[in-house]
Amino acid sequence: MATESEEKALRYRRAQSVSKAEEITETEKKVRKLQLDKPVHTPRDSLFSWSSEFNNFTGLVNWGFLMLSVGGVRLGLENFLKYGLRVNPLEWFIVLTGYNEGDRSQYPSVILIVSLFVSVSIVPIVIGLLVEKGIAVDLIPEKLGVGLQISNMICMVLLPIIALHFRGNDFSFVGITSVCMLYLIIFLKLWSYTQTNHWCRLGLKRKYLDNKLRRQSLSAPNWNKLITAEQEKSKEDLINDTPAAARLTKYPDNLNLKDLVYFMLAPTLCYELNYPRTARIRKRFVIKRVLELFFGINLVLALFQQWMIPTITNSVETFSKMDPIRITERLLKLAVPNHLLWLCFFYLSFHSFLNLMGELLQFADRKFYADWWNSNNISVFWSTWNMPVHMWAVRHVYKPITEMGFSKFNAGIVVFAISALFHEYLVSVPLQMFRIWAFLGMMAQPPLAIISRTAELRLGPRWGNIMVWSSLILGQPLAIMMYYHDYAMLHFKPT
Amino acid sequence: MATESEEKALRYRRAQSVSKAEEITETEKKVRKLQLDKPVHTPRDSLFSWSSEFNNFTGLVNWGFLMLSVGGVRLGLENFLKYGLRVNPLEWFIVLTGYNEGDRSQYPSVILIVSLFVSVSIVPIVIGLLVEKGIAVDLIPEKLGVGLQISNMICMVLLPIIALHFRGNDFSFVGITSVCMLYLIIFLKLWSYTQTNHWCRLGLKRKYLDNKLRRQSLSAPNWNKLITAEQEKSKEDLINDTPAAARLTKYPDNLNLKDLVYFMLAPTLCYELNYPRTARIRKRFVIKRVLELFFGINLVLALFQQWMIPTITNSVETFSKMDPIRITERLLKLAVPNHLLWLCFFYLSFHSFLNLMGELLQFADRKFYADWWNSNNISVFWSTWNMPVHMWAVRHVYKPITEMGFSKFNAGIVVFAISALFHEYLVSVPLQMFRIWAFLGMMAQPPLAIISRTAELRLGPRWGNIMVWSSLILGQPLAIMMYYHDYAMLHFKPT
Repeated sequence: MATESEEKALRYRRAQSVSKAEEITETEKKVRKLQLDKPVHTPRDSLFSWSSEFNNFTGLVNWGFLMLSVGGVRLGLENFLKYGLRVNPLEWFIVLTGYNEGDRSQYPSVILIVSLFVSVSIVPIVIGLLVEKGIAVDLIPEKLGVGLQISNMICMVLLPIIALHFRGNDFSFVGITSVCMLYLIIFLKLWSYTQTNHWCRLGLKRKYLDNKLRRQSLSAPNWNKLITAEQEKSKEDLINDTPAAARLTKYPDNLNLKDLVYFMLAPTLCYELNYPRTARIRKRFVIKRVLELFFGINLVLALFQQWMIPTITNSVETFSKMDPIRITERLLKLAVPNHLLWLCFFYLSFHSFLNLMGELLQFADRKFYADWWNSNNISVFWSTWNMPVHMWAVRHVYKPITEMGFSKFNAGIVVFAISALFHEYLVSVPLQMFRIWAFLGMMAQPPLAIISRTAELRLGPRWGNIMVWSSLILGQPLAIMMYYHDYAMLHFKPT
Repeated sequence: MATESEEKALRYRRAQSVSKAEEITETEKKVRKLQLDKPVHTPRDSLFSWSSEFNNFTGLVNWGFLMLSVGGVRLGLENFLKYGLRVNPLEWFIVLTGYNEGDRSQYPSVILIVSLFVSVSIVPIVIGLLVEKGIAVDLIPEKLGVGLQISNMICMVLLPIIALHFRGNDFSFVGITSVCMLYLIIFLKLWSYTQTNHWCRLGLKRKYLDNKLRRQSLSAPNWNKLITAEQEKSKEDLINDTPAAARLTKYPDNLNLKDLVYFMLAPTLCYELNYPRTARIRKRFVIKRVLELFFGINLVLALFQQWMIPTITNSVETFSKMDPIRITERLLKLAVPNHLLWLCFFYLSFHSFLNLMGELLQFADRKFYADWWNSNNISVFWSTWNMPVHMWAVRHVYKPITEMGFSKFNAGIVVFAISALFHEYLVSVPLQMFRIWAFLGMMAQPPLAIISRTAELRLGPRWGNIMVWSSLILGQPLAIMMYYHDYAMLHFKPT
């Protein structure tokens, strides 16, 4: 009887094609299940043992964000209990405008400064247009014209330095930073304007020469050349004679004030004769962006008053003492609000503000940023977080240099060097303190890019991404603290 | 000429089966590309616009964990700067043993207490075995035996309460908690032992009656009955007569001291006559678990001294003042170290310690926990984080109740009520302070489970999981704080 039931069990299990070794355990399992003590245990590994091969830890992502929120709320409450409510929009008004009731003569009205700088900035723009027009109508020779444009642009960026040298105390820090930023943007736009018009002239000249050559080759027929010329001709027809082409502005028709003003206002640094345009202005979209800007700017200012200022103020003494543990603690304490403010600033500038400008001007290319948050090495980050500057750098610095025959690596170094100069300009001029921390910070990016690329290849994309975020979260407050330290040493000498 | 090239372009695009609307943009794109101003812009949406349909934010997970690390390191440094190094293993020795050089008479040696309690706990175990043996050999009637077992178990859990009542100041808090935990485990094990043996006796009795019935039915042949009986017979053969079955221990052969001691030491609360066993003891595995326990316990004690004690001490005054904002801040401050300690405790107890015991006893079922970190509602959490208790509750409370005809919901409530009683026992007895916070905390779980289940269904599994984590991270310190508040109010009355 025993063998019969065994055979039955065997047949049953053979039908299910279970191996011999498992058959025994299967029998045992079945036998155990039928025992009177209602057994519940079976041989299994713990999930944390390697042998369990369990690797689903998705819940830990939620855990991470929850711990972050708990920490954040706690930090907010601690800050509130320690400092009370420090948010005061009136204070911002004073800081931003430099307005002071007690001493009116010392701080001129912000409206005066802004209108002055805006009107001053119109001069180089108009000069730029007039010079281009002059070259186009052969009034100014090409080389002299380009020379004039370059001097015009250099004069413009030197203007804030000169103004500060003579009347430094008349301007607030925030005011002068905005002006420097504005001038830098106009500088980059004029560079693009001049270079693009130069390309158009070169193109027309080459086309003229090509046509001459073609006519010569047609007079002495050669079948191969004829076919090439025919292809060239049809390509040119596509450029010039299609309805699509007929709608496009051609050089030098673009050289007018309306076109230049549109470019100056448009959310791009790259000049083109014909921008892609949207069909209409979406009112809901505009309203959303305006609301984002309004509430976002207020949030940033409130966070700055409530969180950044007390933290920075508390750090002066620590930084003068140069105790590495305390400095690290301060740096990490500063890193969190600094990083959050940077994220807000990024969203408000690159999403809200540039999209608002784009919508109002019916400018269709809204790629102001790519997904830099997923970038796995620092080069990718620099080429994705600020697309207007990236596109400008590629079109007007990187490509021209590589087309001149230099290597891609050298072209990249030049791009970073120019970017480093501009960063230094934006920090040193308003602080009236020429250090090289910003320049060095930017110039540290190419080696960092190589390190993060190595990390990505060796340790996987996750670690590359972590390196990018680390340099972002820790690098910025480090640079800020260095400038702040030097500034504090210079202005409030320890007693 | 114009129509010819247009047609050419049309043909080309028709071959690629692009729609009419796209054809126009395609022509335009091509024409634009060929312009002299090297255009770079194309119509695209920003990634944060809904219309872009972009949703890859994987880099933000790395961001979250990096921000958590930055916050953690900063908190550690702040703690170190504020309190210095508080880690002192000697202090732990005094707290754990109650040893005090100045007052030897007051605090008996820890070895004395432990040996006393262990020897005292052997008594109920031996009584349990003897009573079972008595029932098995028909010396004690079944009902009287079960009654004896229940009184034995109840006496055991009441022992610490009585001991504390008479000589309360002789025992340290940690010591009495360990003893309560030990007694509770023995209580649950004895319950399982008694009930399982009871099932075996019932089974044997039923089998005897079945055999009698079968013999009767065979004497009056009936084909259907005959087949059923034949099947029954072969099933019984599988249980009793296969080689696998022959190796298994049968009731009442299990009623010996060796078997009971193995069960008492085994990492399970469910008694079985035949546990699944491993082939050998892996030495490397044992060494790893021992090292984990050694370093883990030291880490927990260090974190406790450095982080928990200062935080709790600082909170007494806050809690006596009952200011809701300050209490929330304290609670959140306490939540982080408390939660991290709980995670350490979980790993050390459920992975390191139980796996070590399992390996040494060649106990093959190591499912001491399932993946509770992914659980999407609170019921799943309670049925996965502590598998020994969960298996015990299902086998010895839930199933017997549902088999008696009660609903699953009622059975679940009974399980939670018993669990709540045990939690209250573990907290109130060592604190010598009968509050009902722990009981209420556990009884809040079934309604919370319903809420989290609703959250899971309405908002998706992620929010269910977030609710589980929240209740874990915030619920525990809330309960601790309530007990601590009551304890502080009782012992250090505010002056």
